Formats: sequence, structure tokens, C-alpha cells
Amino acid sequence: MTNSLNSSDFSRMGSEMRVPVIVDLMANALKNPELLSLAAGFTDNRVLPNQLVSQICQEITSSDAFSDALQYGQNQGRPELRRLAGIAIEEHPNEVAGRFDPERLFLCNGSQQALYLAAQTLCDRGDIILVEEPSYFVCLEMLKGLGVRAVGIPCDEDGAIRIDAFVERLAELEAAGERDRIRALYLVSYFSNPSSRSMGLDQKEALAEVLLNADMRIPVIEDAAYRDLFFEAPHPAPSIISLDVYEAFPRLYLGTFTKPFASGLKVGYGYCTDRLWLEKMLCIKGHQDFGSAHFNQCIIERLLSKAEYSEHMSKVRAHYSDKSERMHHALLDSGLKDLGWSWARPKGGLLYWLRGPAGIDTRMNGLFCERCIEQGVLYVPGDLCFPGGTNWRYVRLSFGAISEVLLPEAVARFAVAAKELE
Amino acid sequence: MTNSLNSSDFSRMGSEMRVPVIVDLMANALKNPELLSLAAGFTDNRVLPNQLVSQICQEITSSDAFSDALQYGQNQGRPELRRLAGIAIEEHPNEVAGRFDPERLFLCNGSQQALYLAAQTLCDRGDIILVEEPSYFVCLEMLKGLGVRAVGIPCDEDGAIRIDAFVERLAELEAAGERDRIRALYLVSYFSNPSSRSMGLDQKEALAEVLLNADMRIPVIEDAAYRDLFFEAPHPAPSIISLDVYEAFPRLYLGTFTKPFASGLKVGYGYCTDRLWLEKMLCIKGHQDFGSAHFNQCIIERLLSKAEYSEHMSKVRAHYSDKSERMHHALLDSGLKDLGWSWARPKGGLLYWLRGPAGIDTRMNGLFCERCIEQGVLYVPGDLCFPGGTNWRYVRLSFGAISEVLLPEAVARFAVAAKELE
Repeated sequence: MTNSLNSSDFSRMGSEMRVPVIVDLMANALKNPELLSLAAGFTDNRVLPNQLVSQICQEITSSDAFSDALQYGQNQGRPELRRLAGIAIEEHPNEVAGRFDPERLFLCNGSQQALYLAAQTLCDRGDIILVEEPSYFVCLEMLKGLGVRAVGIPCDEDGAIRIDAFVERLAELEAAGERDRIRALYLVSYFSNPSSRSMGLDQKEALAEVLLNADMRIPVIEDAAYRDLFFEAPHPAPSIISLDVYEAFPRLYLGTFTKPFASGLKVGYGYCTDRLWLEKMLCIKGHQDFGSAHFNQCIIERLLSKAEYSEHMSKVRAHYSDKSERMHHALLDSGLKDLGWSWARPKGGLLYWLRGPAGIDTRMNGLFCERCIEQGVLYVPGDLCFPGGTNWRYVRLSFGAISEVLLPEAVARFAVAAKELE
Repeated sequence: MTNSLNSSDFSRMGSEMRVPVIVDLMANALKNPELLSLAAGFTDNRVLPNQLVSQICQEITSSDAFSDALQYGQNQGRPELRRLAGIAIEEHPNEVAGRFDPERLFLCNGSQQALYLAAQTLCDRGDIILVEEPSYFVCLEMLKGLGVRAVGIPCDEDGAIRIDAFVERLAELEAAGERDRIRALYLVSYFSNPSSRSMGLDQKEALAEVLLNADMRIPVIEDAAYRDLFFEAPHPAPSIISLDVYEAFPRLYLGTFTKPFASGLKVGYGYCTDRLWLEKMLCIKGHQDFGSAHFNQCIIERLLSKAEYSEHMSKVRAHYSDKSERMHHALLDSGLKDLGWSWARPKGGLLYWLRGPAGIDTRMNGLFCERCIEQGVLYVPGDLCFPGGTNWRYVRLSFGAISEVLLPEAVARFAVAAKELE
């Protein structure tokens, strides 16, 4: 008889691991081709750089400079691409030139892997990472999987961290004897997933000062995955790497070359100011895969030297800016405002973060969610973005993958469900 | 003042993490361009399929069937490639047709990631995985990193597991109250890294019988990363998935499309017979990267349908077979046999596993190792392949990356060091 494994046969991590609810949602979506999805965080197939990547692949497979493109690379990643990545970060507004040392940068399977390595190196079960409310739900799921507690920092209506609430939250943790369990602060500070909000310089500085005042020089992780996906202009605040007030903190800055460009290539990176922390993350990366696909690193390295790259990114930005406008107008036209829904217009990214009327419950198996599925539209329930799932009032809508033609229809379906629930 | 992290600031995993000695060895190697490396397990740049991959990249970026190649894929991997992977496994000798269900297969960042996920789901700190002596040293390092104990199963001179010793080892563990800590058996059964030996059908069956007799239906992990890299003929023993005697065991079979073909693409897979185990591994994969690079999966999917693939693999096999012969003759010519060294001729893979004369110490910082570096040649110390590092008599020499021209010179240098130590 076959011995099927059951809960007690797994490690503690294994036995506690549960399929995220969002996976069920997506699986359901796939079963019904009539459903329009505003849930998936995919980018738009219509602006994938097929021609450009094809050309680059031809170039690198016939170039002496890339003669080992199809060979293993280094665990930390190609030195030249690491150098170029540092330069790419420095080209953002108000970064300090010369601050980025290629030896402190590592390439990985999307920036997600760097986040995972960071959590593994810093946190034991029961340890705490401070996150914004809302925060990136894939990160929250990941922390749960590692047995790490995400503790939320309350934010304003518009997503700005409430500095007074941050001070209070730290004091509460201190009073509860949890101070030493706080292992890091995680910030999604550029066109955030899910809120699309960027963090102002004053806020960034105020956060650091709160930590310094509390004498907590904990690691700070800044997730900048959407930073290059601005519409009109890049967000002016520099990264925590370039801010003097963060100098006392061990820092990890996460970026990606492929989220807005070609997510199927999956080349992300981490920049770590702390030598020992970096070394330990690289050790674990060595255990997980001893280096990310070298071919993909070569593609990106070649890409960065080409004028077509910035041309394509301009096209991509214009494309999503336009879709974002269409989404805004579809939301306005749908009458959702009159039903008590509100939202801010994003300045970058792929997402709208909508707050529903008081009393609404947008959770997965709630009435509103069921109505939306009946109407044929999917969203990401906002409670997934709050540690503990305590806030049921929000939804995340993505305009990334859906076509311009179907976008108004999807929003209209959402509004019909909202009206039905009035 | 910057707060540099120190040991107490990390998780237990982080604080115990150490840079593997092999990394130091390789770093030293890079500093001296005169050194010839027989250490790295790289493949040969001269047989990389540049032209073929370039052509495929052009095809997929202009084909409707792959219009989303540069988009995110699924966490588990492309369904069609999973189907083709199952067929590819079935095409090996003596596999049972129709046994491989694409729903049980998942694609990952090289098969190494699947191994990591397996260990995470099965083992808590202090748990045990049974491994051959010698076993794959990257796996041993990885287990150490997770706090998992690798317990070795003694093997013969020629690398065959000593079934009596296996029974004894299990009895010892039982007597020591460790029975419940044994979470899996890990086998490298095709042209093994490091021994290049393949496991015979009788041995595979005998191993299963021992476990059944002990009433231990533990997960069995079979690592077949080198299976496709045979020289004259594939190894005839079927995988544990096709063997009836393994039916009672939850099983994970690990393979790769890219190790022998183009390691820079890094597309591996795991095939898991246990539904729940698979589900949990996929959850963690979702946390680590939510799916491996989709573009690379598309490249491999297209590759599998092309006649050029098997043509290229034939060329690769002939190439390494020839290099293996050259290595064998270089070893013979060097006079190492007279110095008490012995080895078996591999029938596949990239490696020679040499046993030195009684009393030799091939460890990293030993006299022999230093002499080799003085002579300008690098090897992998065999103790790294034994759990606990208890056997100092072996070296692993790779003929994968080094050119045919330099190979005899590298072996000659090795032999000079061996003579000096007599």
C-alpha cells in the first residue's frame, strides 16, 4: 500500500504550509473563460519586447563577449551586470553617485528571491517584521510560510504611514516584551503593490528617526520593484541607500530589471549594505540554486547598453499611463463614487487600490466577492494585504494584463456587483 | 555609526551559515590565471548550443504559440512542458509508459531548487536524510545549511551501496532512538556526482527491500541530473517511479533539461508521487519566486520538438565520451597507478573519482592540496562528499570544462604533486 504523507510526516514548515487563498481564486478564474480578471499582477502581453529580446539573443549567442552565456554563471551573478545595475540605481533622481558598490549587489530569480533570503537570514519562527498596512501580499504569505509575524504599521486613508501610530506600535511591542523579536522593517516605497503610492522623502526620514529615537538599528528592506514603472516622471525620493539618516541601518534594496520589461526573464537583484548579511544570503542562494540563469543575465546586460531599451521603456510607460487613465475614467463612469467607493490616481505601477463603503466585506468568500464572480470579474481582496487580514474594506484592481477594450467592461461588472450590494 | 550585523542579529540559520570551503578554493583559483581547474563541475563552452538556442529564441518570440514567452508563467511551470518532461522521462530504458502525470511534475531553477524544497518540507533541524558515501557535496552543504543531518550509507570501493551496512546503519539509528528523525533517503543513481557510478537495478530493489523490512516507508529522492549524459548507452535501470518495489514510498525524482545541454538556462524539474508533498513544495516555491523564468521554459519546450535537439545531444555525448577517454589515458600515462591511485572509467557524466594511496590526506588545506596548487591544478577534495568529512582519501576530477589540449597537462601536474608526496 502506498504511504501517502500526512501532516505529521512533514517538517513544521511543511505541515503548517497552506495553499494561499489567492491560488484558489486564480484556479477558479482559469475554469471560467468568461471571467475578466482585474486580479492578476501580470503585465500586458501587447507591450512585451519580443523583437528586441530576439535580436539580443541573436547578438549574445554570436558574440565573443558572451561566449559563455549558456554556461553556468557565478552564484552572485555576472560582475558586469552587477556594475550596470548599480549605475542604473544611481540614475534615479537624487541618488548619491558612487555609493553603489557592485560587490554588494547580487542577482536573483526576481527580487522575490532576495526577499526570501533576507527573511531566512534574519528571522526565526515567531520573529517580527514590520510592514506597512497595506503591504505586498506575496511577502505577507511568504513570511507566514516561514513562521514570521508581520506586524502592521497603520497608514492614513491615502496610504501614508502614520508616524505617531508607528511610535505607538513600537511602544506596544516593547511593552509586550517583543522588542528583540523585531528583526526588520519592510517598505514598498515606489508605486507600491497594492496601493500604488510612493513614499515621500519626509516620511522616509521620519521613519528612520523614529527607529533611531527608539535605538533600534534594525535592518531596513526597501522593495522598489515598480520604481521604473512611473508614468510621467520618476518618484523624486531617493532610495534608503542614498539617505544619510539611514546610514546607521543595515539595508537591503530590492529591484528588478524584468517586472515592467519582460517578467518572463525574471532577473531581479538585491543591494545589501551589510557585508555579513550579504554573505549569508549568498550562502543560502548557493544552496537554493547556486546562481540564477546566466543566459537571462546576459540578455539584460546586453539590453542595458542598447538605445532600444529606453525607447521601449518609454513606450511601456506611455502604455500603462494610458491604461491607468482609462481605468480611472471607467471607474468614474461606473458610478462607484456615488456608492461610496474612493481611490487615488496612481502615478506609476499597474494597480488601483479602492476603498469600499463602510461595512463592506470584500473577502474571498464573502457576498461581494461572490457577486463579482457572478458578474464575471475578479479582484484581489484587500484583506490579504493587511497582516492578520483585519481590514475588509479594500480591493486591489490591476489594469496590467487586461486589454483596453475589456477594461471598461470589467469595471462595469464590478460596479454592477457593488450596486447589487447596496 | 553604522550598525554592522553580527552573529546574534541573524536567525539561527543565518548565524550558523558559513561560506563553504569550496567557495574559497574557487575564489583562489580565479586569482591565479595559470591554475588549471579540474574542480569546477562546469560543462564545456565548446559544445554549447549557441546557434540552436538563438534560432529557438527567434522562433518563440515570433510565434503565436509562445506570444506570452516574456510574460510570467505559472508557479508549477508550463503545462505543455510538464507533459513533454513526463514523456522524456518515459523514453528512458525500462520506464513504465503512462505512469508520468504532468500534474505531478513541477519546473524549477535547476533540479537543485527542487532538492531544497524537498528538504524544507520534510526536515526540521536535527532530522536525518540518508545519503550514499560519497554523495553530492552541494546537497550535503545545503542540508547543513538547513540544520539537517546527512547520515551516510557505506559503499564499496567501487561505489556500490553495501546492503548489509545499510541494514546495520538503520539498526544503529533505531538503537540510538533516531528512527523517527529519518525523513528521507537521497540517491544519486545515474552517473553520480561525484563517483560517476550508476546504481544497478538489483541494488535499487535491495535498498527498497531493506526499508520495507524495517517498515520505513520514508520519502525517497532520486537525483538523476546526469542521466541524459551517457556516453555509449543509457543506464538500463529504470527510475524509482517505475519500480513496483518502490510503490509504497512517497517519491521525488529530480531531472534537468539543461545540465548537459545549456546549464545557463537552468530549467530543472521534480516529479513527485505524493500529492500533499507536491502541494507543500509548490507553496514554498511560490514564496521563493512564484515560478521559474517562463522564457527559459518556452525555449526548452520548443527545443524538445526539434530534431536538432537529439542531434546536438549526440554530439555532446560523443564529445564528453572522447574527453573521458583522454582523461583516462592521461591518468594512465601519468603513472598515478604505480603511486597507488585507482579509478573506474565512467560510462557517463563529467567526473572521475580517484582514490589515493592509504594514508593520503586530500583535504583542502592539507599538504597534498597545497602541492597541487603549487603545481597549478585544482581538484575537489573528496572529504566534502562524505557526511562528516570522515574520508580523506578521494579526489573528484572533472573533465567537463577544461579543453582537450590542457587536460593532459592538468593531469600531469596532479601527478607531479602526487609523486612529490610519496
